[in-house]
Amino acid sequence: MNYRMISYILGWILIFEGMFLAVPSVTALVYGESALWTYILTVSICLLIGSLLILKKPEKRRLYAREGCVIVSLSWIVLSVFGALPFFLSGEIPSFIDALFEATSGFTTTGASILNDVEAISLASRMWRSFSHWVGGMGVLVFIMAFIPLSGGQNMHIMKAESPGPSVSKLVPRVKTTALLLYSIYFVLTLMEFILLLFGGMDVYGALNTSFATGGTGGFGYLNSSIGGFSPYIQIVVTVFMVLFAVNFNCYFLLLTKKIKDAFNLELRTFLIIYIAATALITINISGMFSSTGDALRNSAFTVASIMSTTGFSTTDFNLWPEFSRTLLVILMFIGACAGSTCGGIKISRIIILFKGMAKELQTLIQPRQVKKIKMDSHTIDHETVRSVNTFMVAYTMIFVISLIIISFDSHDLITSFTAVATTLSNVGPGLELIGPSSNFSFFSPQAKIVLIFDMLAGRLELFPMLLLFSPRTWKK
Amino acid sequence: MNYRMISYILGWILIFEGMFLAVPSVTALVYGESALWTYILTVSICLLIGSLLILKKPEKRRLYAREGCVIVSLSWIVLSVFGALPFFLSGEIPSFIDALFEATSGFTTTGASILNDVEAISLASRMWRSFSHWVGGMGVLVFIMAFIPLSGGQNMHIMKAESPGPSVSKLVPRVKTTALLLYSIYFVLTLMEFILLLFGGMDVYGALNTSFATGGTGGFGYLNSSIGGFSPYIQIVVTVFMVLFAVNFNCYFLLLTKKIKDAFNLELRTFLIIYIAATALITINISGMFSSTGDALRNSAFTVASIMSTTGFSTTDFNLWPEFSRTLLVILMFIGACAGSTCGGIKISRIIILFKGMAKELQTLIQPRQVKKIKMDSHTIDHETVRSVNTFMVAYTMIFVISLIIISFDSHDLITSFTAVATTLSNVGPGLELIGPSSNFSFFSPQAKIVLIFDMLAGRLELFPMLLLFSPRTWKK
Repeated sequence: MNYRMISYILGWILIFEGMFLAVPSVTALVYGESALWTYILTVSICLLIGSLLILKKPEKRRLYAREGCVIVSLSWIVLSVFGALPFFLSGEIPSFIDALFEATSGFTTTGASILNDVEAISLASRMWRSFSHWVGGMGVLVFIMAFIPLSGGQNMHIMKAESPGPSVSKLVPRVKTTALLLYSIYFVLTLMEFILLLFGGMDVYGALNTSFATGGTGGFGYLNSSIGGFSPYIQIVVTVFMVLFAVNFNCYFLLLTKKIKDAFNLELRTFLIIYIAATALITINISGMFSSTGDALRNSAFTVASIMSTTGFSTTDFNLWPEFSRTLLVILMFIGACAGSTCGGIKISRIIILFKGMAKELQTLIQPRQVKKIKMDSHTIDHETVRSVNTFMVAYTMIFVISLIIISFDSHDLITSFTAVATTLSNVGPGLELIGPSSNFSFFSPQAKIVLIFDMLAGRLELFPMLLLFSPRTWKK
Repeated sequence: MNYRMISYILGWILIFEGMFLAVPSVTALVYGESALWTYILTVSICLLIGSLLILKKPEKRRLYAREGCVIVSLSWIVLSVFGALPFFLSGEIPSFIDALFEATSGFTTTGASILNDVEAISLASRMWRSFSHWVGGMGVLVFIMAFIPLSGGQNMHIMKAESPGPSVSKLVPRVKTTALLLYSIYFVLTLMEFILLLFGGMDVYGALNTSFATGGTGGFGYLNSSIGGFSPYIQIVVTVFMVLFAVNFNCYFLLLTKKIKDAFNLELRTFLIIYIAATALITINISGMFSSTGDALRNSAFTVASIMSTTGFSTTDFNLWPEFSRTLLVILMFIGACAGSTCGGIKISRIIILFKGMAKELQTLIQPRQVKKIKMDSHTIDHETVRSVNTFMVAYTMIFVISLIIISFDSHDLITSFTAVATTLSNVGPGLELIGPSSNFSFFSPQAKIVLIFDMLAGRLELFPMLLLFSPRTWKK
């Protein structure tokens, strides 16, 4: 294990975190909030420890796969721990576990909160929550690796470990160029949402906050009513952008290069079909609760986009919807949306691979002599990908069941416990019953919160890096 | 598709069902019940249609894998449909879907009932319910195939499709001898339970009924209180036999041939560890609800055995237990017990294979060059088995999710809908909330009942035969 190299990269993570913290610091400065001093203190701590760690460049720079995993897991833990400091030091969140929960929920783009009253904390801290979504959504390590002065080639392990979805396909041969392209798309989409929100009469602070939280498909709202208090126009803008951020970013690249047929690949088509079907079914199911079908449709389209993109914003308390809608939402929570987007969940491409794999196996049961390959968008899915998807599902189930058992020690009702694990592991945010959209996670016991923090990190990093971090084999010589 | 051969075998199924119906007929005769005439009528129908179908022996006797699957699925459907006739014709269950639900629940060894008052129906019908568990538990087709005058070699396809667990291991080279051995063990264990229950003061009718329902790990009780009204001695006897029937029958064969180390294989050890751990945890969790720890332990040991063996008997209403115990029971419902026993669920050997597969894949992530094989009890698990287990899990999840969506149209609470699917797909019987042990399935809509009937059959036949029955590819030339 190349410990020198690990601590060197963690040092850079802290330096970048210090720079990210400029955003809430400036917010505090603009609004003249006393939180400014906490933010300046945290920036100093990050920069100081970071500088000490990068003081000496490591000589051996080679990173193996397991070191890639360890670096990714530890980086996200470090980001969350230091990101929690301003909440804790300012006294806005008096318990450190709660502050860590909030910060992890931010970076992992979950959006589950322990705050009873969001509007009671400073504007700076609310900005930090949303901005951490945006930082977490863009795959912070890939971003940082592009800037760290290291000779290339090592980055692929880290990009693989951090990227959502079953496989990393390089758009262009060089990793840095790929990253740059994806970040440009990310930045432009966020900017577009920001402008459209301003058009709808949102103030600059609110529009920035909401765009960051949508971009990372995070879902921390800066108001207690989330998006519920805004005009239909704003709700529709947010709906559209939640859907846009749930699409594989490669598709935008393909659209830009006019490969329209390639852009509307099987995953995107499946996502859109599921999205439209679920929205239609829920609209019918909830229509009695709203004054007009249009209202029902808007709320349904918003909520389905919010759950599938794993953002977690809400316009209404869907916990009070009929059982059919609630059940559908829980199922969508597990599925998530497209790989290569900022959203969480199992991802539609994985589910397609699982289905195709099953269909193939069933066919060999009735026609044992036929050898068929699994194809997706005219390219063959190799055995390794299928196996890795299967492994993902087993790991997902295992983490889910163990988490559920520990959470159930808290003795809340089964739906609360079940959806708490589902919503954190899929990085959604709200769940049902006690953790519905109008509620929060503050009542969980400390050990339950630690499990949910683990689940958020495991969900964001697609399980394997977090599992390997706790496997003795990883640390063996 | 060899239709002549399929109808020929279905004819034999009906003739055997006519013979099985002798058991409730004799019961009606002994107790002088008017239900006798319904049973004689059903026997006549079965024998008549059966004889017509076997009148001409088919010339082409060759069966391919897909025909094996179709025969197995259709046989179980035919068994259930004709098994429902006495309930329906006697007017004891006025709706045919309800009667079909009850009969399917019997043959699939589920034990979920639509009866509000079990004690209101005739002793003959209650005996038929329990006896159908016993028939269903023993893998009725393998039994029948051993008697049908056909040249051998075809049976393996059917045995494979009907047997619980990831693979059929032949104990001795000939299928018939293997079957005979397993049935002897089945018969002797049932007889032992019957005698021990008589010792405890149960009458002959009750002891026979309970032994049949335990043997098939079915769980239809002949009293409204299930096993709750009986002495601790009887509850302990039933507990022990539920555990014994949850063990792979091969283990008994190995014990009889003094291969004790082989008998206590990884699956059996894992089963016993989970059983003891779950019993202990639940005992602690529920101890406050009982007058003594002994009482809590007895009820916990009974309930865990009932759920893991997927029997579904109850001594107390575990729906009222604390959330931790309820959550654990739901998880155990999915797991089930050992392959090669009469019980349902995913089975422990499958879960072991999934875990080992995951551990292996995780290791290749950190040490990509190492090629390791998955081993279980010193023999290697081949890729085909691993793939088939993965396919099973995907099919399981797919059936589960689709069933849950359809059931949730009924608008019962999510826990009721969720556990209804779980308990039928695992052939357990009771669930939580509205379908807890003191309740029943009568309130579900007809379409929900049809879905649950499908789930019971799919669960008993380990999914693939039922899925293939509905796949257009199976029926293509």
